[in-house]
Amino acid sequence: MTKVREIDLRSDTLTQPDEPMRLAMSHAEVGDDVLDRDPTMRALEERAAGLLGVEAMLWVPTASMGNVIALMSHLSRGDRFLAPKLAHVVENELGTASWLAGGLPEAVEWGDWPGRLPVEAVRTAARTGPYHALRTTLLCLENTHNGAGGTVTPPDEHAKLVATARDVGLRVHLDGARLWHASVALSVPPAALTVGVDTVQVCLSKALGAPMGGLVGGSAAFVTEARRLRKMLGGGVRQGGVVAAAGLVALDRIPELAEDHAKARQLAAGLAELGWEVDEPETNIVLAGTPDAEASLAALAKIGVLGVPMGGKVRFIPHRDLGPKDIDEVLNRVATLRS
Amino acid sequence: MTKVREIDLRSDTLTQPDEPMRLAMSHAEVGDDVLDRDPTMRALEERAAGLLGVEAMLWVPTASMGNVIALMSHLSRGDRFLAPKLAHVVENELGTASWLAGGLPEAVEWGDWPGRLPVEAVRTAARTGPYHALRTTLLCLENTHNGAGGTVTPPDEHAKLVATARDVGLRVHLDGARLWHASVALSVPPAALTVGVDTVQVCLSKALGAPMGGLVGGSAAFVTEARRLRKMLGGGVRQGGVVAAAGLVALDRIPELAEDHAKARQLAAGLAELGWEVDEPETNIVLAGTPDAEASLAALAKIGVLGVPMGGKVRFIPHRDLGPKDIDEVLNRVATLRS
Amino acid sequence: MTKVREIDLRSDTLTQPDEPMRLAMSHAEVGDDVLDRDPTMRALEERAAGLLGVEAMLWVPTASMGNVIALMSHLSRGDRFLAPKLAHVVENELGTASWLAGGLPEAVEWGDWPGRLPVEAVRTAARTGPYHALRTTLLCLENTHNGAGGTVTPPDEHAKLVATARDVGLRVHLDGARLWHASVALSVPPAALTVGVDTVQVCLSKALGAPMGGLVGGSAAFVTEARRLRKMLGGGVRQGGVVAAAGLVALDRIPELAEDHAKARQLAAGLAELGWEVDEPETNIVLAGTPDAEASLAALAKIGVLGVPMGGKVRFIPHRDLGPKDIDEVLNRVATLRS
Amino acid sequence: MTKVREIDLRSDTLTQPDEPMRLAMSHAEVGDDVLDRDPTMRALEERAAGLLGVEAMLWVPTASMGNVIALMSHLSRGDRFLAPKLAHVVENELGTASWLAGGLPEAVEWGDWPGRLPVEAVRTAARTGPYHALRTTLLCLENTHNGAGGTVTPPDEHAKLVATARDVGLRVHLDGARLWHASVALSVPPAALTVGVDTVQVCLSKALGAPMGGLVGGSAAFVTEARRLRKMLGGGVRQGGVVAAAGLVALDRIPELAEDHAKARQLAAGLAELGWEVDEPETNIVLAGTPDAEASLAALAKIGVLGVPMGGKVRFIPHRDLGPKDIDEVLNRVATLRS
Repeated sequence: MTKVREIDLRSDTLTQPDEPMRLAMSHAEVGDDVLDRDPTMRALEERAAGLLGVEAMLWVPTASMGNVIALMSHLSRGDRFLAPKLAHVVENELGTASWLAGGLPEAVEWGDWPGRLPVEAVRTAARTGPYHALRTTLLCLENTHNGAGGTVTPPDEHAKLVATARDVGLRVHLDGARLWHASVALSVPPAALTVGVDTVQVCLSKALGAPMGGLVGGSAAFVTEARRLRKMLGGGVRQGGVVAAAGLVALDRIPELAEDHAKARQLAAGLAELGWEVDEPETNIVLAGTPDAEASLAALAKIGVLGVPMGGKVRFIPHRDLGPKDIDEVLNRVATLRS
Repeated sequence: MTKVREIDLRSDTLTQPDEPMRLAMSHAEVGDDVLDRDPTMRALEERAAGLLGVEAMLWVPTASMGNVIALMSHLSRGDRFLAPKLAHVVENELGTASWLAGGLPEAVEWGDWPGRLPVEAVRTAARTGPYHALRTTLLCLENTHNGAGGTVTPPDEHAKLVATARDVGLRVHLDGARLWHASVALSVPPAALTVGVDTVQVCLSKALGAPMGGLVGGSAAFVTEARRLRKMLGGGVRQGGVVAAAGLVALDRIPELAEDHAKARQLAAGLAELGWEVDEPETNIVLAGTPDAEASLAALAKIGVLGVPMGGKVRFIPHRDLGPKDIDEVLNRVATLRS
Repeated sequence: MTKVREIDLRSDTLTQPDEPMRLAMSHAEVGDDVLDRDPTMRALEERAAGLLGVEAMLWVPTASMGNVIALMSHLSRGDRFLAPKLAHVVENELGTASWLAGGLPEAVEWGDWPGRLPVEAVRTAARTGPYHALRTTLLCLENTHNGAGGTVTPPDEHAKLVATARDVGLRVHLDGARLWHASVALSVPPAALTVGVDTVQVCLSKALGAPMGGLVGGSAAFVTEARRLRKMLGGGVRQGGVVAAAGLVALDRIPELAEDHAKARQLAAGLAELGWEVDEPETNIVLAGTPDAEASLAALAKIGVLGVPMGGKVRFIPHRDLGPKDIDEVLNRVATLRS
Repeated sequence: MTKVREIDLRSDTLTQPDEPMRLAMSHAEVGDDVLDRDPTMRALEERAAGLLGVEAMLWVPTASMGNVIALMSHLSRGDRFLAPKLAHVVENELGTASWLAGGLPEAVEWGDWPGRLPVEAVRTAARTGPYHALRTTLLCLENTHNGAGGTVTPPDEHAKLVATARDVGLRVHLDGARLWHASVALSVPPAALTVGVDTVQVCLSKALGAPMGGLVGGSAAFVTEARRLRKMLGGGVRQGGVVAAAGLVALDRIPELAEDHAKARQLAAGLAELGWEVDEPETNIVLAGTPDAEASLAALAKIGVLGVPMGGKVRFIPHRDLGPKDIDEVLNRVATLRS
């Protein structure tokens, strides 16, 4: 008996470098980025800074390292930071925001829309107290919001949140691991979604095919400090140009994310027709409700469809290494399940 | 114009050592507790261990140090711990549970009764994941629960929570800074409220008049480690017997806490009559709702009545250095306020 | 057979509060030092600040907590600090200077005199490097220097070290746990030995009989931060006045340390006559060379004389709870040993 | 006036991937190494484990991350670790061994041979003490020893050091960033130099041309933990196979390091003839004494010869991207200097 071909929707981190990207990597001009600056890394950093409307960006091996570097820069022992419920920096980074960067997180409940914060909740949560109390000093935004199912925060809501944060004395970090998706879904430039932030992190390895890496940045002064922090954490690679070249190709592909969004809508619509409880996705993440997520995932795995559990639901992420026909095939297989 | 006498209800930490306690302190037998063991500290530790039904206890300068020592012992980087919403270890200890002890907190919502955790919420929150996910390893209980208004968790609920924690592989720490109050309110011995915990912390400086100090303990092995951790944190005092003697007197006074509870009920009933939104207190903490806590506190301060804000309400703690007549006087003054 | 009376020379931390000190403690005016300020603690802090010639001081439960608070204030991750070889902050504080305060220590070799640093060694060690190198930012002095046998650094050498530190961009912390001894030995006021430092720590529990506590201070801004750090570490006690009162008595007794120095010279001279390898002590610490320190300590213990090993030698500290006759008795007993 | 061509001898980290290595990278089979295992990374890890004679290895973005992961695994707060003077983990990793891994370093003086530790010094330094003292728990070796000028520790001395460490209860980590060089210089397999260690780190980016990456390993249990620690620190990359493929090519090239050693001897001999104070190098590092290292480096830079300062000397590292003729050219240029 032959094993069924797996259709892997666990994450968009699965996307692999294709031939053009590999070609770019094989021609990359490189240098020792610790001693000097690798020229291709520098080109990538400058291009990303331009796209994001900030002074400077710094390549990092992973989006997680980008987040923790920003938080190490912003937070001190005794600080509290706010983040939307189910934020990646709280749920998915092994507590580094706390034990490494020193901040105690407070999860802020979403407002009417999943993943979006109400400005009043930020204002309330940014409480202060006497000298021996936690000091709320930072707001961490996440756009799109993974735990909420890839939901977007549009520029006007973003601007209000940043203005509120400023008003109550908070700095702002934006976890933009999937900011590109928000940009595409909203048809606005990425820089429209970073207005006013102190720091922003973006990922190149999710959905865009780059084998590894992300960027973190903000002011030039921040990037100077971030470069030192990156070295501390063991992220100071040498001839990083070989992977930065992949990052440059990845940036070219941002418009193509619209195809992933279409596949996500295709999958969600199909699942809904099959009786699954699923909202229309705003970007590339499909969150499907089911009475028992673990049982559903096990049943799906048996028919060669892979997802992951998230917040009691099943998460699927269609990506560039799968086509619309693969989504059709997923739906065909799911149709054979009796749930 | 003479200033009105202040009636200070901000905290039971305000209680001062009286003459008998000072006399005991002045006669205390002492030794160098770092090099050897101070005999009065040892006597206090042994007596507290007996009361709490654990193998051993260790004196600490503050309840906060007791909590963080226990958490340092239990937690590692990458661990998550559960605590009831508004727990002292999360809200009031400057994030040490995280940046010092290494654990990321998750606030668990209370159940039907303020401050008490539903076992199912503990079971759900104690989720696990793949190798790169946070590991939930510890449940922190707090009895009485300060942030909930001094509410108690009775022995049977405590036992169910501990059993659930065990069932899902969690260790259990009990923040018992006001465990004595729960014991008195429930008319059970303190040891009935520590059944099954790994570690417990109790305070001597709250309500009982000791000038400083608490105790943390559990197994003898834990106390051996805790003694080393206490030295690390700068809590290894020398002739601590002078304050441990006050602690021994404090333990004698546990039954007298019933008088504080009566004063709290007196205050709450009076405030309710005056139109304040206030529940009947279970122990010594009165939480009073008001449209604007900060404004109410300012108005109260003008008439010489001091409280503190807590969770949007006003908190009062009657204590042993105030009598029922002081509470009457508070109510008389409050009656003059037009809110 | 009766056990011989022990003469305990292990440390001057063994000194116990006597009747006058206990009386002062029993009359101490107290308050809640976390919420407000305990009046006796404040009086002690102000008097110590005056003696030391700094803006402000803060009571801490132990000298170790004083040191780590100062270092937490001065150091960041990636910093290196300099300290004389065998400094207490490096050897005897469980690494808190590093894992808690964030600094990597570098031991600087003493110059011609044990425990005193040559200015050139400080200048050389204060090296800098590229962005990815450690930054030397702090010089920790220790006066008297415990590990060197209680040696003093006189005001002129102190001033040169501070000037050199400033010249190469270092801040200066002074571990003055036994600064009083240096002051007495040199017949200069304590403030003559703190000139130019950023922070200084002094101890009240060593040699002076106070049961616990020390002070750390410098500028008023530092003390504001230190008070918050003290709360973080669990050192924020409430009615600390009871022990601060002992501290005030301790400060009265500084001139009496000359008697301890005399007893130390008496002991050293006697040991030298008996053939031990021992230098004349500058203060209250006697370091005696012996072929096998552990064996010597074991032999001494059998005749009821207690010391501790230090750097391959045997350390004795005569103190106020022992008189010259006790030293005679020690020498008589040692004379019975065949080494 | 044309600028002189720079001959860059600052480090062997400058080596760049050549065509065959880039070709291997462009053909690498990849996968999501966080979710599953990237097949090329796994192949590299398995091959390295075989070469090094340990159960398992784990790819890391940098050698520094490899070291700190090993130290995080071995060390706890309150531990002391031993390392040879000028060890990379102490001098060149921004204090992470301390503030991140928790250990306080103690530099052990070299014996008769630069960079090699005498077993007696290890035995002496591995002292213990009472419960409130630092515990020495780990010996960090470094072979070759960078700060000593690339000196090797041969198998018999390595074995004696490991045996001594075991005898006094220490674990052993080997910083083998240039272990390949020691292996080639001594004509022994790499596994002969890892006998008995708990963990070992090797680098692929130094001298061998791989653009980034190293490996850390030991027992399978350690690697399981290391994988989690790597994720914490932000080193969990996805399709790492593209750079792991370069690592596999790098391993093929270990024998070619002999050419670098020859160039180092060529450079050292030439410099000695020109009157520089320089020992014959054992591997690829040339340490040249000069009255003023910074001045010499500036003069060298003017004639297009780049080195770095190290321990008061000038360090040159000939590498695979430079040939013997480049070394001749360096010597010709240096001959024109009047020092």
